[in-house]
Amino acid sequence: MEKWRASQQFLKYTYRSIFGRRFSLRSDYPMPQSGFIYKHGNACSPSINPSLELYRQQISWTWCYPLRDCINMLQPSISTNLDRSLRIQCRSFSSEATKIQRNPSFATLTSDDIFYFKDILGEKNVIQDEDKLLAANLDWMRKYKGSSQLLLQPSSTEEISQILKYCNSRRLAVVPQGGNTGLVGGSVPVFDEVIINIGSMNNVISFDKVSGILVCEAGCILENLDSFLANQGFIMPLDLGAKGSCQIGGNVSTNAGGLHFIRYGSLHGNVLGIEAVLANGTVLDMLGTLRKDNTGYDLKHLFIGSEGSLGIITKVSILTPPKLSSTNLAFLACKDYFTCQELLVEAKRTLGDVLSAFEFMDDHSMDMVLTHLEGVRNPLPPSMYNFYILIETTGSDESYNKEKLEAFLLRSMERGLISDGVVAQDINQASSFWRIREGITEALMKAGAVYKYDLSLPVEQLYNIVEDMRLRLGFCTN
Amino acid sequence: MEKWRASQQFLKYTYRSIFGRRFSLRSDYPMPQSGFIYKHGNACSPSINPSLELYRQQISWTWCYPLRDCINMLQPSISTNLDRSLRIQCRSFSSEATKIQRNPSFATLTSDDIFYFKDILGEKNVIQDEDKLLAANLDWMRKYKGSSQLLLQPSSTEEISQILKYCNSRRLAVVPQGGNTGLVGGSVPVFDEVIINIGSMNNVISFDKVSGILVCEAGCILENLDSFLANQGFIMPLDLGAKGSCQIGGNVSTNAGGLHFIRYGSLHGNVLGIEAVLANGTVLDMLGTLRKDNTGYDLKHLFIGSEGSLGIITKVSILTPPKLSSTNLAFLACKDYFTCQELLVEAKRTLGDVLSAFEFMDDHSMDMVLTHLEGVRNPLPPSMYNFYILIETTGSDESYNKEKLEAFLLRSMERGLISDGVVAQDINQASSFWRIREGITEALMKAGAVYKYDLSLPVEQLYNIVEDMRLRLGFCTN
Repeated sequence: MEKWRASQQFLKYTYRSIFGRRFSLRSDYPMPQSGFIYKHGNACSPSINPSLELYRQQISWTWCYPLRDCINMLQPSISTNLDRSLRIQCRSFSSEATKIQRNPSFATLTSDDIFYFKDILGEKNVIQDEDKLLAANLDWMRKYKGSSQLLLQPSSTEEISQILKYCNSRRLAVVPQGGNTGLVGGSVPVFDEVIINIGSMNNVISFDKVSGILVCEAGCILENLDSFLANQGFIMPLDLGAKGSCQIGGNVSTNAGGLHFIRYGSLHGNVLGIEAVLANGTVLDMLGTLRKDNTGYDLKHLFIGSEGSLGIITKVSILTPPKLSSTNLAFLACKDYFTCQELLVEAKRTLGDVLSAFEFMDDHSMDMVLTHLEGVRNPLPPSMYNFYILIETTGSDESYNKEKLEAFLLRSMERGLISDGVVAQDINQASSFWRIREGITEALMKAGAVYKYDLSLPVEQLYNIVEDMRLRLGFCTN
Repeated sequence: MEKWRASQQFLKYTYRSIFGRRFSLRSDYPMPQSGFIYKHGNACSPSINPSLELYRQQISWTWCYPLRDCINMLQPSISTNLDRSLRIQCRSFSSEATKIQRNPSFATLTSDDIFYFKDILGEKNVIQDEDKLLAANLDWMRKYKGSSQLLLQPSSTEEISQILKYCNSRRLAVVPQGGNTGLVGGSVPVFDEVIINIGSMNNVISFDKVSGILVCEAGCILENLDSFLANQGFIMPLDLGAKGSCQIGGNVSTNAGGLHFIRYGSLHGNVLGIEAVLANGTVLDMLGTLRKDNTGYDLKHLFIGSEGSLGIITKVSILTPPKLSSTNLAFLACKDYFTCQELLVEAKRTLGDVLSAFEFMDDHSMDMVLTHLEGVRNPLPPSMYNFYILIETTGSDESYNKEKLEAFLLRSMERGLISDGVVAQDINQASSFWRIREGITEALMKAGAVYKYDLSLPVEQLYNIVEDMRLRLGFCTN
C-alpha cells in the first residue's frame, strides 16, 4: 500500500505540474525538472503499447507509453475507469520531480563502515569504483538512477548475514540486487542505499534426478540453471526474456511469471523452499525439498514476491519439470481481442496436454518492434491485423505434437478464430518469432522514455484499459 | 510445534506405560486406560501398512499399524533412526491416557449462549441432538472422540463472523469442521469445543470459462464441484478418495494433495484466493481471481495448510484445468522399492505430458485390502510381488494416450522396471484398480485400531521407515 500511495502522490504532483497539456502533442514540450528520465528519450509519435502474456490472467503487464504525452492522464484513469481489481505496483522515481525525501534517520557511510565491509568480504568485493557503481545504480530501462556509493558482493549466506546485521546496527539503508533486469526500477537504490549484489552466490548445491528438485544459491543466472538442467534432462519451470542475466533469487523475490506460466504455473507452486536473511542478520532456513510439507505455516510464500522487503533470499529449492523433446511454435493473427480470448479457451481445451505458451500483443507493439529493432520482420502480411498470438506446444512426441497443433490451427481457422498464421519450420524461425514478443521491451526503450507498471487485470477486461487510455489521451482507437 | 510436543509427550507416556512389551506379540495384551481408541479394534496379526502417493515426494503418508503392537516403539524410532527431514504432525488423543487437560481459561456453554446462537442462526441450525452431536464428535477413523455439546451450522460468512466474535468475547473454544473426513483427528473436538460446521455454505459463486477460475463457498463438496465443472468442460485440480464427502474449505485448510498432485500440483499453485474469518470475527477478503497477483504479501498461503488455526476459510477461488477426454490406467508390479523410483523417473520423462497419477503401495497394503474389503481382487497373480504401482495417463487424444502408455510399458518391461502388469480395458476395470488404492484406509480401519500420521519424507528414503520399523518391532522383513 505504501508503494501505491507513493505512486498516487507522485502522479498527483505530476498531474498538476503539467496540467493542461494533455491533448497537446507538439514536440516542443518543456522538459520536466529532472533531466535523467529523459536521458534516453527520443522523440516519437505517441502510442500505447501493451505487450502481455494473455494466459497469465493478470499479468506482469508491460504497460508502456511515451512519458510526456500520457502521464498527466494516468491518475483520473486509475481512479475512475478501471475495474476495482486493477492493482498497480510502481516505484516512485528518483527524479527531483517526485519530491521524495531521503529518510534522515538512516545513517550515511563512513570510512569505518568501508573498513568493516572490507574486513568481512575482502577488498575486491567492496566496490567503490565509479563505473561499476554507475551500472549498479542504473536500472535496465535506464530510467531510475540511485546514488549509492557502495556495492557489496558477498559470496555466502554468512557474509550477507554479517552485512545486514552490521547495517541494521548502524542504520545503513540497503537494497538487494540480483541481475538488475527488472523493468519497474525495483533493483536499484532510490538514494544512497548500500547495494548488496548476490551475483557471486551462483553455485548449484544439489540436483535430484528422481524428484527433479534443484537446490541452488540465489545468484545463479536463470539461463545457466537451464543449461545445467538440460544436461540432466530437465528444464527450469520459468523462462523470461531476461534469462541470460536475471537471477533465480530475483525471480523468486519478484514472483516472476514468464513465458511458460501457462504450462508450469506459479513459483508459489514450484518453489519448494528458500533460505533468507532478515534485516537483522537472522538466517531463516526454509530450504525444504519436499513437494508437499504441511509442517506448520508455510512462511516461504511470504517471501515469494515480497521484493526483498522481508529479507534477502540466499538459496532456493525448486521443482523442475523433465525436458520434452519436441517444440512447435505458431505465429497467428486475430481480428479482435474477444477472438483472442476464444482462441485461448480453445487452445487450453484441445492443446491442454502440450500447450506451453500463449502470448499476446497488439499491432502497436508489433509496429514498435519493427520500427526500432534491427533484423525483425513480421512473418504475416504487414499492417493487416490488429492482434497477434504466439502459441507454443511442447511434448515428448514430435509427430503427435505437430499433428495436434496443425489440427487445432485448421479447426480454429475454420471457426474464424484465426485470421492468418504461420508455423515455424525450424529453430531459427521460432527464434525470430520469439524475438518479436521478447523484443517489445527493448523496442519501447529505444522509442523513448517509458512508464512501466506491473498491473494485474482479469483477462476479459485486460484490453479495456488500452482502449480507455487511448480515448482519454485523444488517440484514435483501432 | 505445540502439536508435535503434545504428541511427544503422549508417546513418552505411552512408552513408559507399556514399556517392556515391545517384542511381545501375544494377543492377551492388557488394554490401556482408554476404552475408546479400542472401540473398533479387532484382533489382527501385526503388520505395517504404508500406502502412499510416491510422486508427491513426502507425502500425506498414511502410516498405519495396529496400535497395541507398535506404539511403544515409535518414539525412539523418531528420535534416532529417521532422516532429519522427517516431520510428524499428529493430534494427541482424546483418551484419558493422554493426560491432556482442558484449558480452564475457556468458558463452558450456558443457556444464554445457546439463546444467542439460535437468535443469529435460527433454531434449526443450532444442534444439540445427541445423535447428530455424536457424528460430529467422532472422526472418520472412529478413533478420536470429542464431547462437544453444540454444533452450529452457519450459512454465511457474516454468521461465522458473528459466531466467532461472540465466542471470542465469551472465551468459548471452537473447532471448525468440514466434511469430517480427515484421517488424523483434526476435524473433531478434543474436549467440549463448539463445532462450527461449514457444510451449509455450499454454493458456487462464479465460474469463468475463459480462465477456468471457480469461486465457491468453503462447504462445497469436492465431488459436487467436480460434477458442476464437468458440465463446463473442466475438472477440479485435486481428487481424493474422500471426494464424496470432503469439502473444499477443508481441502484448502489441510493443503490436501490427492491423487492428481503429479499432474496439477499443489494447492499453493492452484488456489488463487480465499476469504477467511479470524478468531475475533474479522473477515479477511483475499478472494482474488488473478492467476498471478504481486500486490503486497500473499497472505492467503499462510491459511493453506494451517488447519483452521489462523481462522475459518469461508470462500475459495481456485484455478481449474480443462477436462481431457481420454484416460488410461495401468496396474503394475515392481520387484523392489528402488525399481519403483526408477519407474517414476522414466514415467515423468516419457509420459510427462499425459501422466496424471503415479501411486504406490506394498504387498502388505494389498493383503490388507484383499482381506478386509469385499469384492476386491488383485488383478495380478497373487502373492508374487512386493510392490505395486498405479499409473494413470490423461490426454485429449484417445489413441495417442493409449499408444504412449503402451510404448512406455513395453519399454519398461524390457528394461526390467516392471515385473508384471495389466491395463484397464474399461471404466469398470479402472474403478476396480482404483478401489484397491483408495480402499487401503478403509481396510485398515476394519483391520483394527490404527495410528495414522501425516509424514513428509524424501522419495528415496521413504520406504526406509517401513523397513526400520519392521526391524524394530521384530517383524520379518520382505
